[in-house]
Amino acid sequence: MLPTEVLEKAQSELTDWQGSGMSVMEVSHRGEAFIECAAQAEQKLRRLLGVPDNYKVLFLQGGATGQFSVIPMNLTRPGDTVALLNTGQWSAKAAKAAKAQQLTVDVIADEAASRYTTVPAPGSYTVPPDAVYLHYTPNETINGVEFGYVPDCGDVPLVGDFSSTILSRPIDVSQYGLIYAGAQKNLGPAGLTLVIVRQDLTGKARSTTPDVWDYATMAAADSMLNTPPTFAIYLFGLILDWVEATGGLAAMAQRNRAKAARLYAAIDGSDFYANPVCPTARSWMNVPFSLADTSLDADFLAQAEAHGLTNLKGHRSVGGMRASLYNAMPLAGVEALIGFMDDFANQRG
Amino acid sequence: MLPTEVLEKAQSELTDWQGSGMSVMEVSHRGEAFIECAAQAEQKLRRLLGVPDNYKVLFLQGGATGQFSVIPMNLTRPGDTVALLNTGQWSAKAAKAAKAQQLTVDVIADEAASRYTTVPAPGSYTVPPDAVYLHYTPNETINGVEFGYVPDCGDVPLVGDFSSTILSRPIDVSQYGLIYAGAQKNLGPAGLTLVIVRQDLTGKARSTTPDVWDYATMAAADSMLNTPPTFAIYLFGLILDWVEATGGLAAMAQRNRAKAARLYAAIDGSDFYANPVCPTARSWMNVPFSLADTSLDADFLAQAEAHGLTNLKGHRSVGGMRASLYNAMPLAGVEALIGFMDDFANQRG
Repeated sequence: MLPTEVLEKAQSELTDWQGSGMSVMEVSHRGEAFIECAAQAEQKLRRLLGVPDNYKVLFLQGGATGQFSVIPMNLTRPGDTVALLNTGQWSAKAAKAAKAQQLTVDVIADEAASRYTTVPAPGSYTVPPDAVYLHYTPNETINGVEFGYVPDCGDVPLVGDFSSTILSRPIDVSQYGLIYAGAQKNLGPAGLTLVIVRQDLTGKARSTTPDVWDYATMAAADSMLNTPPTFAIYLFGLILDWVEATGGLAAMAQRNRAKAARLYAAIDGSDFYANPVCPTARSWMNVPFSLADTSLDADFLAQAEAHGLTNLKGHRSVGGMRASLYNAMPLAGVEALIGFMDDFANQRG
Repeated sequence: MLPTEVLEKAQSELTDWQGSGMSVMEVSHRGEAFIECAAQAEQKLRRLLGVPDNYKVLFLQGGATGQFSVIPMNLTRPGDTVALLNTGQWSAKAAKAAKAQQLTVDVIADEAASRYTTVPAPGSYTVPPDAVYLHYTPNETINGVEFGYVPDCGDVPLVGDFSSTILSRPIDVSQYGLIYAGAQKNLGPAGLTLVIVRQDLTGKARSTTPDVWDYATMAAADSMLNTPPTFAIYLFGLILDWVEATGGLAAMAQRNRAKAARLYAAIDGSDFYANPVCPTARSWMNVPFSLADTSLDADFLAQAEAHGLTNLKGHRSVGGMRASLYNAMPLAGVEALIGFMDDFANQRG
């Protein structure tokens, strides 16, 4: 979902960007106008997130799934150990890709026993001092679990997959060695991958790392070693304008917290719906829920769609429903969903 | 440059795609509508290019520059030899990236002596039988040289970087082991990378190849292992519609040949302008030219820009001017350029 204001602005200037008579998709990425557009996007992001000067901001391609391999390529050598908190499918994929890069993956906390309805408690795990980094997934979209705190790993750099949570609230970038995110949840359209990396962690890539995925090479080229995904970067800039215009990240956090609280309250207050996640680990972004009578699932989804409530089917691995409450989803959208859920429950309950 | 019709269609449905009430950038890539959109794009491409059934069509990310590394990752083992025809900067980059993947690169023809104003003559080079593939660059954008023939390499698979020439004319895909192309010249917006690969060449990737770049893995997932660049794929589909509607690739070739012929004739018929490329190797897509008096270069560019003729500055490595005549450039645009060139020459010559 993208904010209506952003889509309308993109639409209005799609055939004539900044009076150039050309689409932003047509201008050269080496031209002054686009270089300025990308530089502005970086500056806006730095301002919003408070990115310290010793961090590089990179615009890459290949998604967070690409980064599962690229982070090991850049930060490790074959045979190294990395630590990982396993809180669901995205952490598990990151672990698998790290192993394929010939790393030993030390899973120092694993929430499998709770069926991924929890996150490990602070202090319940120890990061081995020889780990090159600790990887974790601040928000798991499928089971809807989220860390309410930043893992403490001492001098070991912390690496976080922020694909589903970036820009949803303020974060303290200085606590991380590397933050990465696919764009398609809160940053704009698919096809852009954001990496924010502490400068001292760059410049150590394996010799076989492709140039387009070598952090130091891409940083030196301002992410324009080759043609970047220009339209996605442009739209990312518009999203950042919208975040600023709507009050910045503190205000965004307030709205997101309120949206999630409203939906969890509705679920918890009903015998008809249930959410299995431990209350302290509940995601603001992804709210899975089940119907007491699962034989009504298909009917629920069909009627929801008829009411304009789409994308509510839960991931096939867990079933049930899932509501995603990313930044662009307004509180009114959540209220509409709750209204429909109430009606459906009254009708069938 | 993108066709006006395509941009206008994209603009008209940017906030409401197929009556969904959503932008194509907002719909799920796992939803029926987008899966159909991507499948249609593949089918249209197969129809236009006549892609045989034993070839996979992949929608990837990272650009042709990414593929410089990814092709070796998928097709070779460290220590293997690949053959390469060096016709300019893009071939040289492909060679460098292959070496970084621990390959021996056997440059069996090198046009450095002509300062890259020629391509090797058919039969003037021998492909070593132990080469895993022969790589060449059908069109070099910087020096404006192009192969007028398909290299014959017997049983050794032929790999071609079609970034700047795909869809500009018919090609016989069956002569190739692998064709790849960044989208931003003739296929749509930056951020989509097209790979057409003979099926028997897939499934041999090195174990460290990232999943998003493993041809077999991506083929098995219909290029949707992770979120693909949805907007770029959608726009690629619109471009294919436009190519079909304007007569297909034979008609496109006729128009492109005519555009290039018109510009080369104007250059050759003038003492004021010159193109250094051997006539049989001249590119249809990129026409570099110089002014007899190079002190007028800056003035030429400034006046051209004032006449709405942009992006005419030659690559910094060769200087002078360069006109790019990709599919979306109409003959009228070429005539406008020639008219301006004549006026400028009359004024200053």
